[in-house]
Amino acid sequence: MDSLLETVSSNRASGGTQGVYRHASAATGTPMVFSVFVPDHAPGTKLPLVWYLSGLTCTHVNVTDKGEFRRACAELGLIFIAPDTSPRGEGVPDDAAGAYDFGLGAGFYVDATEAPFAANYRMETYVTQELPALIVANFPVDTARQGITGHSMGGHGALTLALRHPGQYRSVSAFSPIAAPGQVPWGEKALGGYLGGDRELWRHHDATALIEDGARVADILVDQGDADQFLAEQLRPELLAAACAAAGIPLTLRMQPGYDHSYYFISTFMADHLAWHAARLS
Amino acid sequence: MDSLLETVSSNRASGGTQGVYRHASAATGTPMVFSVFVPDHAPGTKLPLVWYLSGLTCTHVNVTDKGEFRRACAELGLIFIAPDTSPRGEGVPDDAAGAYDFGLGAGFYVDATEAPFAANYRMETYVTQELPALIVANFPVDTARQGITGHSMGGHGALTLALRHPGQYRSVSAFSPIAAPGQVPWGEKALGGYLGGDRELWRHHDATALIEDGARVADILVDQGDADQFLAEQLRPELLAAACAAAGIPLTLRMQPGYDHSYYFISTFMADHLAWHAARLS
Repeated sequence: MDSLLETVSSNRASGGTQGVYRHASAATGTPMVFSVFVPDHAPGTKLPLVWYLSGLTCTHVNVTDKGEFRRACAELGLIFIAPDTSPRGEGVPDDAAGAYDFGLGAGFYVDATEAPFAANYRMETYVTQELPALIVANFPVDTARQGITGHSMGGHGALTLALRHPGQYRSVSAFSPIAAPGQVPWGEKALGGYLGGDRELWRHHDATALIEDGARVADILVDQGDADQFLAEQLRPELLAAACAAAGIPLTLRMQPGYDHSYYFISTFMADHLAWHAARLS
Repeated sequence: MDSLLETVSSNRASGGTQGVYRHASAATGTPMVFSVFVPDHAPGTKLPLVWYLSGLTCTHVNVTDKGEFRRACAELGLIFIAPDTSPRGEGVPDDAAGAYDFGLGAGFYVDATEAPFAANYRMETYVTQELPALIVANFPVDTARQGITGHSMGGHGALTLALRHPGQYRSVSAFSPIAAPGQVPWGEKALGGYLGGDRELWRHHDATALIEDGARVADILVDQGDADQFLAEQLRPELLAAACAAAGIPLTLRMQPGYDHSYYFISTFMADHLAWHAARLS
């Protein structure tokens, strides 16, 4: 650990170490907390890593407690990193009405350009640049072997960051992602609030639009519960499927009968996603 | 569901259904909440079940969120039930100083005889009689095939209830149990508070003393982290091991290097415990 990183907790778990760490982020101008699971490994080995981006209202805690990823990561030799979903703190601007779907807990993995959010809400820079540099300096990761996944808003984040930074992530998957944010209420509010009213700019942060506009990844795994209360209005995986089909991107879209939007759904299919990533990072 | 049972939540999870239910308990005189996981099964089938008793400060929520039991239960065909650890509510007497280790959240799985606790703190009757009757009436359980496990105070509960009701439970295991409560501070406070000052009466609710006094089970699995902060003062598995050795009860006591008292430890070894129970309940 270098001096930039404060250890909040460290526990032996599932044949590895589950840590939680805090640091002062230059990107967001706030303290930021994240969790890292490192499986036991031979000294000197560098391991592939999977980034997990959480959904609206979440922090690193939700998946760290409920995600059921550690056993699979230990078996597959994967490091698992869960950042927070937004800057937090006294001075950080929030949704004016305190809504759950904008501001605190709802960073949407973009660098905001609109006042008053542009100073702190720089989650794309944080997740793709600042935090990786900190991780490389402190954990035994092989930066040539990074995958990314996430849930809901974090599924949107995983898809868009993989499409925008294809040299950085070699594998991508998502759980019930907001697949076309420019066309749904959650996304219209968030992208409008962080990026302003020009919908052309939103297309750079919308997985479906990015693919329509030429961005490419090798393949995508998406799991989606068919009893998810947000499916029809907010998630719209059929729009992503159409864009992938037109672009020739192999999309494995699995509609899971009876499953909803909760961590009961995520934990059920977590091991499948980690195996997907491990197969592409080995 | 009969009309005595209110469904708090029901979610598809890991190839089964994770439910949370509330009912009015005659044993405790309070509302009580518990969780049940039922794996998918053929219509008309009755499944073996494992009771999980939680530790100090816990409710059903801790293991339901963090226990990582559902996948193994689905694979093994086990129903998993997690009751609360004590009565709760406005009129329920608590520790005079509000301590975490007595009163609310700390029922110790005994029927209290001391005022003012005797009216509500009847957790042995609740867990061994009232709740099983409710479970049988509402879930597809085979009552001839019940196992019991638990953590810390709940490990104490699992061991003592199995020893006191050997016809009811066919398998027993524990995670970091309070193995000899009559000889440690947590147990002295709880058994003294609920049962009064006669230490002879405590022996009926102390796994080590029960075995010394002739109670028997077929065999026992105990996992214990060697970095557990409560090991030396409160848990004392060596006392249980000595009693089992003297009584000829096969005890599998696994000291797990580096593991502490947390759910990171429990979740790591949960699947092993469920396999232990399934082998004895098949």
